[in-house]
Amino acid sequence: MADNNKKMVEAITSMEEDFAKWYTDVVKKADLIDYSSVKGCMIIRPYGYAIWELIQRQMDERFKALGHENVYMPLFIPESLLQKEKDHVEGFAPEVAWVTHGGNEPLAERLCVRPTSETLFCEHYANIVHSYRDLPKLYNQWCNVVRWEKTTRPFLRSREFLWQEGHTVHATAEEAQAETEQMLNVYADFCKDVLNMPVIKGRKTESDKFAGAVATYAIEALMHDGKALQAGTSHYFGDGFARAFNMMYTDKNNQLQYVHQTSWGTTTRLIGAVIMSHGDNNGLVLPPKIAPTQIVVIPIAAHKPGVTEKALELTERLSKSFRVKCDTTDNSAGWKFAEYEMKGVPLRLEIGPKDMEKNQCVLVRRDNREKYFVSLDDLEGEITRLLDELGRAIYDKAAANIERRTYRCTSIDEIKAALAEHGDGFVKAMWCGSEECEDKVKELTGVGSRCIPFEQEQLSDTCVCCGKKAAHMVVWGNAY
Amino acid sequence: MADNNKKMVEAITSMEEDFAKWYTDVVKKADLIDYSSVKGCMIIRPYGYAIWELIQRQMDERFKALGHENVYMPLFIPESLLQKEKDHVEGFAPEVAWVTHGGNEPLAERLCVRPTSETLFCEHYANIVHSYRDLPKLYNQWCNVVRWEKTTRPFLRSREFLWQEGHTVHATAEEAQAETEQMLNVYADFCKDVLNMPVIKGRKTESDKFAGAVATYAIEALMHDGKALQAGTSHYFGDGFARAFNMMYTDKNNQLQYVHQTSWGTTTRLIGAVIMSHGDNNGLVLPPKIAPTQIVVIPIAAHKPGVTEKALELTERLSKSFRVKCDTTDNSAGWKFAEYEMKGVPLRLEIGPKDMEKNQCVLVRRDNREKYFVSLDDLEGEITRLLDELGRAIYDKAAANIERRTYRCTSIDEIKAALAEHGDGFVKAMWCGSEECEDKVKELTGVGSRCIPFEQEQLSDTCVCCGKKAAHMVVWGNAY
Repeated sequence: MADNNKKMVEAITSMEEDFAKWYTDVVKKADLIDYSSVKGCMIIRPYGYAIWELIQRQMDERFKALGHENVYMPLFIPESLLQKEKDHVEGFAPEVAWVTHGGNEPLAERLCVRPTSETLFCEHYANIVHSYRDLPKLYNQWCNVVRWEKTTRPFLRSREFLWQEGHTVHATAEEAQAETEQMLNVYADFCKDVLNMPVIKGRKTESDKFAGAVATYAIEALMHDGKALQAGTSHYFGDGFARAFNMMYTDKNNQLQYVHQTSWGTTTRLIGAVIMSHGDNNGLVLPPKIAPTQIVVIPIAAHKPGVTEKALELTERLSKSFRVKCDTTDNSAGWKFAEYEMKGVPLRLEIGPKDMEKNQCVLVRRDNREKYFVSLDDLEGEITRLLDELGRAIYDKAAANIERRTYRCTSIDEIKAALAEHGDGFVKAMWCGSEECEDKVKELTGVGSRCIPFEQEQLSDTCVCCGKKAAHMVVWGNAY
Repeated sequence: MADNNKKMVEAITSMEEDFAKWYTDVVKKADLIDYSSVKGCMIIRPYGYAIWELIQRQMDERFKALGHENVYMPLFIPESLLQKEKDHVEGFAPEVAWVTHGGNEPLAERLCVRPTSETLFCEHYANIVHSYRDLPKLYNQWCNVVRWEKTTRPFLRSREFLWQEGHTVHATAEEAQAETEQMLNVYADFCKDVLNMPVIKGRKTESDKFAGAVATYAIEALMHDGKALQAGTSHYFGDGFARAFNMMYTDKNNQLQYVHQTSWGTTTRLIGAVIMSHGDNNGLVLPPKIAPTQIVVIPIAAHKPGVTEKALELTERLSKSFRVKCDTTDNSAGWKFAEYEMKGVPLRLEIGPKDMEKNQCVLVRRDNREKYFVSLDDLEGEITRLLDELGRAIYDKAAANIERRTYRCTSIDEIKAALAEHGDGFVKAMWCGSEECEDKVKELTGVGSRCIPFEQEQLSDTCVCCGKKAAHMVVWGNAY
């Protein structure tokens, strides 16, 4: 048993040895993805896709509860449509895939495979919004998008990925701004409540805005290795696209007005964020709310009479309240322990002849391997409690990682020293607001601005770079 | 009120006048779709997409209950991969969209946008299936596909559409054949139970098989205008793809064997089938199980005290058990009646001062406009009963349409006469099995073979065309 266990564990690189390798080992060995002959695209396998379905369902519920409706827009964008908003096309044209032929015929106008769908939504809204009575329109779509990335990594950056993109239009700038902020909060709450992942909310600097946006807001998470990961964005567009696409409505006074617009998105990247926030050297650690299997039931000494039957009976009973699976294969118990640890199953339930005598079973938490001997009489209650506890514990652990890796610095030298001593993390430092200083910090220390957090701290009065009056505290860091 | 009603109804072409125009009127005026500047692609609007979500959810449950798992494969297929199976590439290459550039760079190998994903699944299965222990693999994916159609119609035939594609591999031919048939039955049952739509199950003739299949099975529905619509297909591949892609496994005797394979699919076309099976000259008629709104609550004399409050109270109460919506806008009741008839909402609930006095409300069925005065005490029970009844009634009506439009013929002249007298429909006639006769029937009568139904009838002993010994009864017809 010990041998088997050891063998499984040795099969993945430890994160201290090579974090990038650890990550790719986990996504492969936990059966989340596979590679195909399509360069830069991934196959999302059943276990990975089940996680995505759980994310989708729970996020979609939150969107709908706030009045959003799902739609489906075309996969293709004609080149002329993409070009309607100047900043937008400049941002995206260099990284789109172009369809030039349909069947054997060259197309009259080439089509790009959507990298994002602002232009299509704008065209549609221009068609269907006429009066203030038509506003707001709160649309979202779940779909695939394509960006022709040079270097790719499963979930984190791939040429095709799955996402949701919300696109809303409103009568006033205030309403659109409120929506932008509301959706950022929805994302942050979702990360906390469902993914057990703490994030920093903030605004992107001018140089880091979405192509065509007035303001871009983001949630930033911190991975085990101290690198930041942008986990979701929410954009306020003002009336920029409205002017380019002539999206107008008649207000209550019969005056023509431009609409005000937002968009917001999260992607399969969230799965990558979960892996690198909670995983350990035994593999995945899944938040209970997105774990395809929340409890794996493993019969111990399964050859003894009644054990397998009891395991199956418990599985049936628990499946009324939880996502549960029983492994009755003839693999050793040790192999099974390691396998489901690799897959990040939150709770392992062991049941053997001795447990049966005592009307109990053993529950083992994935995150800390703590063992609990639990009476079968109150099994559901105890499991609910342990799943909640696990969720809170991995959140707290990730929050502690952020705190430990947050460096408050008041000079370039302090930044360099903190990074040299403790490795990557969130560097908090004051900034005057100029792009020159932003670039210079990056050049001198290697870390770029992640966001201007909503929760500001007054670390000093002066810019960490030029020494002039500081405008904001910025979080800096290396990012995925 | 009457005027408003009339106005709405006049807004769509009657199906007797122009069925094609009636169809496009309905999809537009019921807010199911919109057109975009992307030729041949449609925008699925919230009301249309909500129908698709309900179809998806209920069909997905049935797949999962049978052990199928969802995955996600890349959008793109390298040209060399598409070419691996000869018949398959010949069938699809003429109608795919080709990506030739990524960003500003031409691609070394062009990629087609998946028209279907057999090749990708084969490549993946070749990677992950090694032993008989790995079989069967029962995968499905929900995604978009692209086929470069010349003429397009919303839901029925578009360059991009949404669908599910199941792809399974099995140890034996028998298991794969059983899966092929099982999934055809799942589709037929789904059409009956969820879409209230009767279908004929059968096998496609050789000339009508899927590119690369050994046998293709289909469910065929009949639309109001007498044209057939293929609503789902299930293919048995034998080991053809297995040989092309080297998909092999080691059996229990340690011998290398090829896997046996199936695929099966249904698309957003089902929405078109529902429209043309159940709709009428007032618009959509939606099966209760896929109606985004099952009951619309309309306050009558809403200016009278307490009416709107009562309507909202009932809405809140009913939303615990049904998908319900209350229209409290200041549009006239007549306008509302026509609007929700157009949208096919199964039940209209009217509540006014007189109803309130009697502790009752009025329920009106969409399909036959029958009125029911129902006590508020047993509202839920009565609604459940009426929704069930409506579902059965529209099924029976569609079945009667099939029966009325089924012509049993024993000669080419009889086929011609039946079609001339009664219009399009299902022509049942015997066939010798030769492609020559199949083509000739089409040439002489205009109708092609739809399928060889599982439920055979012995109409005569000889082929309707050549007079030689008949092999099967075939259903012939014009099709969407």
